[in-house]
Amino acid sequence: MKKKADSSVELHPILAERWSPRSYDGTAEISIPDLTGILEAARWAPSSSNSQPWRFVVARRGDHRFAQMVDSMAGFNKVWSPKASALILVAAVTIQPDGTLRPAALYDAGLAASLLTVEAHHRGQVVHQIGGFDHAAVIKDFNLAPEITPIAILAIGKQAPADALGDPKMVEREIAARTRVPLESLILSGAL
Amino acid sequence: MKKKADSSVELHPILAERWSPRSYDGTAEISIPDLTGILEAARWAPSSSNSQPWRFVVARRGDHRFAQMVDSMAGFNKVWSPKASALILVAAVTIQPDGTLRPAALYDAGLAASLLTVEAHHRGQVVHQIGGFDHAAVIKDFNLAPEITPIAILAIGKQAPADALGDPKMVEREIAARTRVPLESLILSGAL
Repeated sequence: MKKKADSSVELHPILAERWSPRSYDGTAEISIPDLTGILEAARWAPSSSNSQPWRFVVARRGDHRFAQMVDSMAGFNKVWSPKASALILVAAVTIQPDGTLRPAALYDAGLAASLLTVEAHHRGQVVHQIGGFDHAAVIKDFNLAPEITPIAILAIGKQAPADALGDPKMVEREIAARTRVPLESLILSGAL
Repeated sequence: MKKKADSSVELHPILAERWSPRSYDGTAEISIPDLTGILEAARWAPSSSNSQPWRFVVARRGDHRFAQMVDSMAGFNKVWSPKASALILVAAVTIQPDGTLRPAALYDAGLAASLLTVEAHHRGQVVHQIGGFDHAAVIKDFNLAPEITPIAILAIGKQAPADALGDPKMVEREIAARTRVPLESLILSGAL
């Protein structure tokens, strides 16, 4: 199903049609070129002083990393995400070698994750970002160094019809309209 | 000038051709539909629990906000950015009403800023993100509330030839190849 953004001007089709479904085709596999392209899109993102602070753990359905990521999730995420073709943990190097914090690394990781998402949609995949997971568990499972902060797990795969979710509450959530606050509420100063 | 990403697989043309130039056409004005589309692209980004923590200050060349943003910048940024058609300060609501920190807001703001950039390129604009500015000055100038963290100023406009920068060092920097660390260095775990 499609849920086009209700924007006041027409957006690029990928941006207008991108949303975060939870209904994935549990039989679809993602090809290596698609997975590579998705990660290359993140790699070529801009960052503060070209610091490239984004890091990834890459899991494909069926491997042990995939199972570990699903295990780390909270609530409904654990129910729908196993049908994704891949799960990618996005993390950032938030502490510099001299011990100082780099909060901009979180922003930069967001820049990369969005370009990843655009490339995924371009390749016929959909992406749903999951923040509800046990950070301590993934730090332990993937032996993340102290300077690495896990941020989100991205579920990537082929979209399935909303009904495939089964649970009526999840179906209702899947078909609900996308909503955003008005643009005016986001602009602190400066008229258009 | 073009500087296509040297990726191992072909990326969406906007992602492959996006880079962060400093040479802008100082006579070009950005239209209201283009500026609106760019901000709408950010507005429709995904965020943690749809919290939409991104905020913007919008300046167009010639207005007082534009001059204030340029004044806040450090070094060379102050030299090239005045030729941009618009400057957009990206900020995030990093403190919740109950006083707790929301570090994910920085990541979410990054998600929005990248979609903004994709829409800008789609509309024939280029974007260069500037982290080198006086945060205290913009907080004062734009009367940002305590829960709002300024992150980056995005210079948006029409790209001009590298030579237009004048200064040979800036021209050299403009034409230098784009570089990234190898994809393998970004993947902490999980083979492709």
